[in-house]
Amino acid sequence: MTAITDNLETKNRDYAATFDKGHLALPPAKKYLVLTCMDARIDPAAAIGIDLGDAHIIRNAGASAKDALRSIVISQQLLGTREILLIKHTDCGMLTFENKDAYALVEKSLGTQAVEDLKSKNLDFLPFPLLEPAVQDDVEFLKGSPLIPEDVPISGWVYEVETGRVKKIV
Amino acid sequence: MTAITDNLETKNRDYAATFDKGHLALPPAKKYLVLTCMDARIDPAAAIGIDLGDAHIIRNAGASAKDALRSIVISQQLLGTREILLIKHTDCGMLTFENKDAYALVEKSLGTQAVEDLKSKNLDFLPFPLLEPAVQDDVEFLKGSPLIPEDVPISGWVYEVETGRVKKIV
Repeated sequence: MTAITDNLETKNRDYAATFDKGHLALPPAKKYLVLTCMDARIDPAAAIGIDLGDAHIIRNAGASAKDALRSIVISQQLLGTREILLIKHTDCGMLTFENKDAYALVEKSLGTQAVEDLKSKNLDFLPFPLLEPAVQDDVEFLKGSPLIPEDVPISGWVYEVETGRVKKIV
Repeated sequence: MTAITDNLETKNRDYAATFDKGHLALPPAKKYLVLTCMDARIDPAAAIGIDLGDAHIIRNAGASAKDALRSIVISQQLLGTREILLIKHTDCGMLTFENKDAYALVEKSLGTQAVEDLKSKNLDFLPFPLLEPAVQDDVEFLKGSPLIPEDVPISGWVYEVETGRVKKIV
């Protein structure tokens, strides 16, 4: 037990005590998926009004479309979603480094074996130097992928962690 | 504009109108990360009590540790998180198919070019046939990875979509 697992168990007991959504179906009711960042300052359900059961929510470092491709294909082909909302955000950690910096950090803190593992996986951390162009690039990547049906609506957004506001980019 | 982007804009206007968390820092305050599934029936912040700013939340199809490795390394090495909570769930879509089924579905609905793209990427959809063993396997995978520090606490859980309850597996 840690303070964090204690918190999980206490808060979950309260949540389950009033839970009344056990009837929801596996496929998302509103047939869309949201791809956003893992950033701790984003609560997608609250910030953009996603009711429980309505949409798949995929989150990774930077809301990377490339890194999310496996999940997107499963969401669309096996679970019937269509529309895609891609939401990156201001003050993202991915704006602050390049692959070589991450490799150097891993070597310093985890050692040579860890870096060799990164190299053997050819792991790309997929950082980006500019926010709005990165949203555009990822939307283009999805539109150009043979794995995404051509008639799927795809929009790109920026969430402002300073104001809670979402702004449409593309 | 679609009904879904309309909903986003309307709900976000309400959210931003009372938003008062613009001061939160980039690194998660409680230094932990949660890895769970993209499933539409899971609201991690509500279900396990994650306050805004406290933890990274990574979500993909099936809460796959392998697929999340890039994000986990960034979370820990660049943004200072340590503890990992891995949460899979009952009635997961990943329990219902195998890679060959997904490849066949993609070929049927998207055509030969799409399947060739999957093959060129050597894409593994990472489904699993049994829930609790999959939680154990993923925790083992993380514990055995040279990219995760040895002293990081890692726990594995199942969220019950029928009851809202979380159960510890490992």
